[in-house]
Amino acid sequence: MAYINEHFLKLKAGYLFPEIGRRVNEFTQANPDKAPGLIRCGIGDVTEALPEAVIEALHAAVDEMGNRKTFRGYAPELGYEFLREAIAEHDYAARGMDISADEIFVSDGAKCDSANILDILGSQNRIAITDPVYPVYLDTNVMAGHTGPADDAGLFEGIIYLPCTDANDFVPAIPEEKADLIYLCYPNNPTGATATKAQLSAWVDYAKANDSIILYDAAYEAFIQDADVPHSIFEIEGARDCAIEFRSFSKNAGFTGTRCAFTVVPKGLAAKDAEGHDHSLHALWGRRVATKFNGTSYPIQRAAAAVYTEAGQTQVRSLIDHYMGNAKLLREAAANAGLEVFGGTNAPYIWVKTPNGTPSWDIFDKVLNEAAVVITPGAGFGTAGEGYFRISAFNSRANAEEVAQRIGAMAW
Amino acid sequence: MAYINEHFLKLKAGYLFPEIGRRVNEFTQANPDKAPGLIRCGIGDVTEALPEAVIEALHAAVDEMGNRKTFRGYAPELGYEFLREAIAEHDYAARGMDISADEIFVSDGAKCDSANILDILGSQNRIAITDPVYPVYLDTNVMAGHTGPADDAGLFEGIIYLPCTDANDFVPAIPEEKADLIYLCYPNNPTGATATKAQLSAWVDYAKANDSIILYDAAYEAFIQDADVPHSIFEIEGARDCAIEFRSFSKNAGFTGTRCAFTVVPKGLAAKDAEGHDHSLHALWGRRVATKFNGTSYPIQRAAAAVYTEAGQTQVRSLIDHYMGNAKLLREAAANAGLEVFGGTNAPYIWVKTPNGTPSWDIFDKVLNEAAVVITPGAGFGTAGEGYFRISAFNSRANAEEVAQRIGAMAW
Repeated sequence: MAYINEHFLKLKAGYLFPEIGRRVNEFTQANPDKAPGLIRCGIGDVTEALPEAVIEALHAAVDEMGNRKTFRGYAPELGYEFLREAIAEHDYAARGMDISADEIFVSDGAKCDSANILDILGSQNRIAITDPVYPVYLDTNVMAGHTGPADDAGLFEGIIYLPCTDANDFVPAIPEEKADLIYLCYPNNPTGATATKAQLSAWVDYAKANDSIILYDAAYEAFIQDADVPHSIFEIEGARDCAIEFRSFSKNAGFTGTRCAFTVVPKGLAAKDAEGHDHSLHALWGRRVATKFNGTSYPIQRAAAAVYTEAGQTQVRSLIDHYMGNAKLLREAAANAGLEVFGGTNAPYIWVKTPNGTPSWDIFDKVLNEAAVVITPGAGFGTAGEGYFRISAFNSRANAEEVAQRIGAMAW
Repeated sequence: MAYINEHFLKLKAGYLFPEIGRRVNEFTQANPDKAPGLIRCGIGDVTEALPEAVIEALHAAVDEMGNRKTFRGYAPELGYEFLREAIAEHDYAARGMDISADEIFVSDGAKCDSANILDILGSQNRIAITDPVYPVYLDTNVMAGHTGPADDAGLFEGIIYLPCTDANDFVPAIPEEKADLIYLCYPNNPTGATATKAQLSAWVDYAKANDSIILYDAAYEAFIQDADVPHSIFEIEGARDCAIEFRSFSKNAGFTGTRCAFTVVPKGLAAKDAEGHDHSLHALWGRRVATKFNGTSYPIQRAAAAVYTEAGQTQVRSLIDHYMGNAKLLREAAANAGLEVFGGTNAPYIWVKTPNGTPSWDIFDKVLNEAAVVITPGAGFGTAGEGYFRISAFNSRANAEEVAQRIGAMAW
């Protein structure tokens, strides 16, 4: 008799974005006249074409695959040296961080990596997760059996929730409880907040004092505008002893449909077995990747490497400028409409307080019905997201301008 | 205090192919004169260029990604409709099987899928694995904590091993014990054996009688030459009620470095919770994929779809003919050298009995040192693989001819 993994049954119905899709479908079928004018500012998906340098690299690599002399079969599971070296040099060494190429593991997505990392970590770890949060961190822990059931409010037993609200500038306070694994994401999805060096240092100190591991998601680092905002957890003294970092090409170079990302696991990073002996997480992750993954597509790795060329860097900057220009328009429109607005200055997300404490799914339906604009309800990211909604700046300029106008025209 | 997943510590040192890589490195460093002439018939990696139809589709899709009007962001997690429809039509409907497009889940690799499937299955399942076996099935179960430790012979406590030797034509007998999950792979890696309809029917009957699930790996189906050998478990009556199938574009169209595969989970397929209630594995796998994966690269999905065009089919057939021509040469050379030879007629692998019961790692070293040819020791695939070795037919024709000659010249 085959058995299922029953932990899946604890998951709440519908992952956030499928539920949004369902409501949008209902709306467009009920309002065929409004459907053509619908503008999506919901899911954080990029809208602009891949940079030219990336396109050129893809074509060149495809041609290599069409010739048996230059054809490539299985890639090294951990990633090609040419890409790992480029990452180490440009994302780390250039910012004064000491991360070597063989501490970088190339993959097909930061979502996959931040989910799969649990494979190498024990089920007895106490998990701390910010609230609101990117749902993947929570759902993968539920699936892995690291939680009890959810209560009526949707909070899972055994999870240490770290509320992030305007009261703490969306950076969680250090908890009194001891957490073994702490998920942090800055610039933050969904709040668009950033963490200062001092705030991250406090977390690194906490992790070191407790032998905890910080799982740091820096997928949005390219959107940072302010010079003093850290781009990586490894800018913080001591982080090599307590942190794993997830990065992606999805949001900087527009790879959401192209798929490339990487994870940094410092060589000295260790966690314990039940008897208290240290084991290298770098070695365990290497074993996991070699056993359960077969490498990232060769043309895609060449495409990612092109992001680090001079042309690629210029083109990525222009993409970032485009989206951050949208963010400015949307931020100002919401503020001018009298709404309380956060984020959107070092991140492509604007986090908006709902007027008069309206529940966020109600605001979702209101904005959909009155403005034909899809936003993301804060409650979809966790209970502390209730009372907020997220506007994504990933759009064409024309759409961002139109959304700004519709936001201004709505009766909030 | 962060803890590791201690089940990883039960794994035997080194995944097979890294260990081969280590010995080959040692050999080439110790024998710089022989290194240039080294020929690899070890890992099952393709050597020939991608089919032209695939290259054209890749270029066209890359161009789409370079234009914002045709750009694609996040793919549907489960795969694009155009690819799922092509698979359903050509791989299933054309052979009289009833598999719909929405029972097909597109991914970046069959290795990943056959590893990740355990996410949705309970830890109380009793696992049956053929011996010898593709190491991923076993290692992922060890990592997931579905086994006890290994004994001195390398056999893991709690696993039902199904020995496959020449005595049973490398198709396991139905065990007396009840297994909940059964891994089968035909055409088989590593033995090159195929299973008949009658043999697979017996397994389907067993699975249905015991409410078990067959995890069927058909990654090598394109190499089947004999008309009566089944290409899919779903050719067997009743398999929709008890089987999941893994397929890949790696070996037919040469995608080992390009990355695309798919998994078929029939909609009616169910497994139990602890109280004996049925749950849809299709729904659970869909949830797993949507939560832990972000879709396969758009250009790569277009490339896979091109495999099903008329030109693509012709070009794939010519690749298969090439590798099967190699297999014939290698098979005959080994047989002429007096070795007992299996496989290689419906699969790209030749499975050879070591002479006089020589241990297979000894034969590996002997063939490496005397012929500068890399083969795979049977023991690397399991204890019942001891006394055999595998020759891969994935090579250029010139290399296959050269290896055939060196095999003939060796003092076995």
